[in-house]
Amino acid sequence: MITSADNTQLKLIRKLRRKRGRDESGLFVAEGEDLVEAAAAGGWDPEVLLVAGEDVEPELLDRVSSLGSGSRVVGVYRQRWADAGGELSLYLHGVGDPGNVGTAIRSAHALCDGPVVLGPGCADPFSPKAVRAAMGSLFARPPARAEWGELRGFRLALHGRAEAALSDLATQVKPPVVLCVGAEREGLPEELVQTADAVARIPLRDGGPESLNVAMAATVGLYELGNRMPADG
Amino acid sequence: MITSADNTQLKLIRKLRRKRGRDESGLFVAEGEDLVEAAAAGGWDPEVLLVAGEDVEPELLDRVSSLGSGSRVVGVYRQRWADAGGELSLYLHGVGDPGNVGTAIRSAHALCDGPVVLGPGCADPFSPKAVRAAMGSLFARPPARAEWGELRGFRLALHGRAEAALSDLATQVKPPVVLCVGAEREGLPEELVQTADAVARIPLRDGGPESLNVAMAATVGLYELGNRMPADG
Repeated sequence: MITSADNTQLKLIRKLRRKRGRDESGLFVAEGEDLVEAAAAGGWDPEVLLVAGEDVEPELLDRVSSLGSGSRVVGVYRQRWADAGGELSLYLHGVGDPGNVGTAIRSAHALCDGPVVLGPGCADPFSPKAVRAAMGSLFARPPARAEWGELRGFRLALHGRAEAALSDLATQVKPPVVLCVGAEREGLPEELVQTADAVARIPLRDGGPESLNVAMAATVGLYELGNRMPADG
Repeated sequence: MITSADNTQLKLIRKLRRKRGRDESGLFVAEGEDLVEAAAAGGWDPEVLLVAGEDVEPELLDRVSSLGSGSRVVGVYRQRWADAGGELSLYLHGVGDPGNVGTAIRSAHALCDGPVVLGPGCADPFSPKAVRAAMGSLFARPPARAEWGELRGFRLALHGRAEAALSDLATQVKPPVVLCVGAEREGLPEELVQTADAVARIPLRDGGPESLNVAMAATVGLYELGNRMPADG
């Protein structure tokens, strides 16, 4: 039973709250029984697994938790990255909010067969907020990393000022399709929009907000394409 | 220039971070230039408006901010509630996460003409997290409150185990339509599902998560209905 905050495992968990600690070690933290169970179900063995009251004094575990409420179980895992691919996948560019990255990972797991591919400027998917938002989907479908030029498939970019509505394009594209979504305010950089295979917009009402939240836009896009794009061949 | 943390206006802002303070006063706080501008654009006059360095010492304003980064501008506004209505609107039941409530308000403003109607068990839309997630849409399209039995229109409930796919039902419903979405884990209570006018599911992949995040599900639902339900008459 761990009874000191100076314990090596607790120190590691504290260190992994910071990006630098995760980058240096290649590890990350998942908190709570649901996530730890999802990891086990996906065949991920924890490097460290601490259960409050069994392995560690509950108060000490609460103190290293990133949740306001504290955690009964905390696991440390080795980061995994998938390869890009799939009939339908999602590419995010410059999406700096970890909650949006995590939510997109969950939506992609529910709606398409390919991973979320993270381009430059995206938040760390293994940060505490991203892990929480992705829920078990981070373990079931780890993200990939790629540059724009490395994407394989039909690059369909979402852009607020595109002429074509997504619903019209969705029935015309052929898999593999990569739905490409940029950061909320800036959108995709102009050179990416120019070199995409097609550009589409999600029609929004006049007088409403200029854009949807980036995770919302990605989810709507994956839903529309998943439902309406023709099957391969 | 306010130079003391004991100032009445700063005390009020601190008080409004708590639900009880908001309920008792009927006021709420919006932080940051974007939100304060959106309020002004929507014709909302602030009860209090504090600009760092002009009205108050920046450090004092930072200390009452709910944002980690502090705020340069903080406004206090009187809560407004809209009436339910519209050709297409969204009813949330038991959605306790303020970020989800706020995001749904933003999506509804972008995708449908009616307000978000909050049923029992929903988070306070005027809490700091909800205000932030809703962005300017909270001012442009305030939420409504109603019980299930008070909803007017065709009540289309989203439910993970419904037989009909949303895409099939969307072309058959007639406005006014109220899309009804429940809390993430529990979904809509059984008696609501039983008394809805129709029940539909968003098709998810086998082996993926059991559900989408509630704000995602609501956004996909509004998108699908907004694009495909027949116009009135």
